[in-house]
Amino acid sequence: MVERVRAGDARALARAISLVEDDAPGAVEVLSACFRYAGDALRIGVTGSPGAGKSTLVDRLARRYREREETVGVLAVDPTSPFTGGAILGDRIRMAERLSDAGMYVRSMATRGALGGLAQTTADAVTVLEASGKQKVLIETVGVGQDEVDIVRLADVTIVVLVPGMGDDVQSIKAGIMEIADIFVINKADREGAERVEKEVRAMQSLAMKHSAEDEWVPPMVKTVATAGQGIEELVAAIDRMHEWLSEGGRLAARRRRYWRERIVEMMRVALLREVHQHGFSPAEIEEYAAKVEQRREDPYKLVPRLIAERFAVMEEGR
Amino acid sequence: MVERVRAGDARALARAISLVEDDAPGAVEVLSACFRYAGDALRIGVTGSPGAGKSTLVDRLARRYREREETVGVLAVDPTSPFTGGAILGDRIRMAERLSDAGMYVRSMATRGALGGLAQTTADAVTVLEASGKQKVLIETVGVGQDEVDIVRLADVTIVVLVPGMGDDVQSIKAGIMEIADIFVINKADREGAERVEKEVRAMQSLAMKHSAEDEWVPPMVKTVATAGQGIEELVAAIDRMHEWLSEGGRLAARRRRYWRERIVEMMRVALLREVHQHGFSPAEIEEYAAKVEQRREDPYKLVPRLIAERFAVMEEGR
Repeated sequence: MVERVRAGDARALARAISLVEDDAPGAVEVLSACFRYAGDALRIGVTGSPGAGKSTLVDRLARRYREREETVGVLAVDPTSPFTGGAILGDRIRMAERLSDAGMYVRSMATRGALGGLAQTTADAVTVLEASGKQKVLIETVGVGQDEVDIVRLADVTIVVLVPGMGDDVQSIKAGIMEIADIFVINKADREGAERVEKEVRAMQSLAMKHSAEDEWVPPMVKTVATAGQGIEELVAAIDRMHEWLSEGGRLAARRRRYWRERIVEMMRVALLREVHQHGFSPAEIEEYAAKVEQRREDPYKLVPRLIAERFAVMEEGR
Repeated sequence: MVERVRAGDARALARAISLVEDDAPGAVEVLSACFRYAGDALRIGVTGSPGAGKSTLVDRLARRYREREETVGVLAVDPTSPFTGGAILGDRIRMAERLSDAGMYVRSMATRGALGGLAQTTADAVTVLEASGKQKVLIETVGVGQDEVDIVRLADVTIVVLVPGMGDDVQSIKAGIMEIADIFVINKADREGAERVEKEVRAMQSLAMKHSAEDEWVPPMVKTVATAGQGIEELVAAIDRMHEWLSEGGRLAARRRRYWRERIVEMMRVALLREVHQHGFSPAEIEEYAAKVEQRREDPYKLVPRLIAERFAVMEEGR
């Protein structure tokens, strides 16, 4: 299967990602095999409020890269709402129509793995996409929760999409995401209020700049009207500039090292949690403890440390 | 300190919650002492999109309970955005003005604990509030991310606040939250489009009802205009009915048992993660592994299981 993924076979790619998404038997082996060939793509994260026009923007970006003869993988990560489901699906179907193009693969992700969460599943899917030789991997998600911040951390270049005319209250992007933005896009820039959004971001930036080192990247601001294709060329140029900047002086490697630092700890957390589930405590045991705690016959703040101490031994410096 | 918390001393309460929030030395002991006196309050979760008017609604509810001579604790959990910070703070200050009322305590939570995440910190704060004898604990949060779903799971009664006039795209509430709603509130119900929101929720409900058992609670829908105090009486009545229903046939106990089942596993996860940090791997080690993975000299999918197996021993049935 991995051989066919590497050859860019879209069906093998789809099956491999499904395997990973379902955490099915063999998933780890596939990932391990893919990892050897991963790491060469530029990962571009696109995030912003619901309704900011991210899908259209990603669509335009992908198209532009295909015109440049670059291969593209798109992961649309959707923390589903029953209300938005329809709209997002519609967009996806439009994009999927280009599936006949062998240089492009589009996938939406919603299932969160049993233990690892959506961010890890997305990261694993990126590994598979990279093994298939995609040069650009676009990761699209709404920037509203901690999951989404974690997803965005995958990216080498993070684009935060803002829109004019949404009240302060509705432009509900996590603080953590504003901070990791590499490029700001003001989409629907033909609407009233674009200047106000720009001003707000500039104010935030100048505040942040006081604390930043001299050779740091200053996030540029690009105005787009994605539905009309306006500003896409400028956005592509901004991404190219960022890519160039990252390639100098080992910056990309440093970023990815930082990413792996967090990811390895997260993978350990999941591996340990798996141990808890597999070897630690049966559902019946947990149920029994839950009943006792509910009846206040057990104090969870004492119970849990006791259980962990009883069941798991840490071998200090144990190699 | 716990004695003074129990006496309802607001300053002791504030200090105890800060201790828990900072995961400071002594936090576990305070929680353990508080736990003995916790569990008697009705926990009411209020969630919805940003801008749905949750703060005002919570404010009105709290005020109504105080009129009924019930003591109230309010936790406003804020997954902060730099754009919304100001507005939320403003609301909080208004509420804090009533801090002179000894029967009411208001607190906003934003810091996520080092390891446990915002949901656990919130749960711990609820334990402290309950120990102080509050009869109603209101937990307010926006319903957009996984963190927020986890926070809402704390509640005995979950209120989901919707508003007319926000596009499908903006009413970005997690599917998981719609499913655990016990009461729907259509706030700003004097606005155009209230009927449409109502119809959408009813459609979703009738779909869900097909799969539900006969004695299940059917979430009622309450229309409010919180700023004008309209519908608050009806909402309080709906909460009272739900409380009554929960009190029959051990339903409340069953709900809380289910909650504790998940919470205990989560507490174990955190306890294990703490072991990883304290005894498992030094930052320097993690840094070294991250560098190797970044250079593709190590495969993380093989590295992590190996490290876990080397360092942690599971004692099967080890009691």
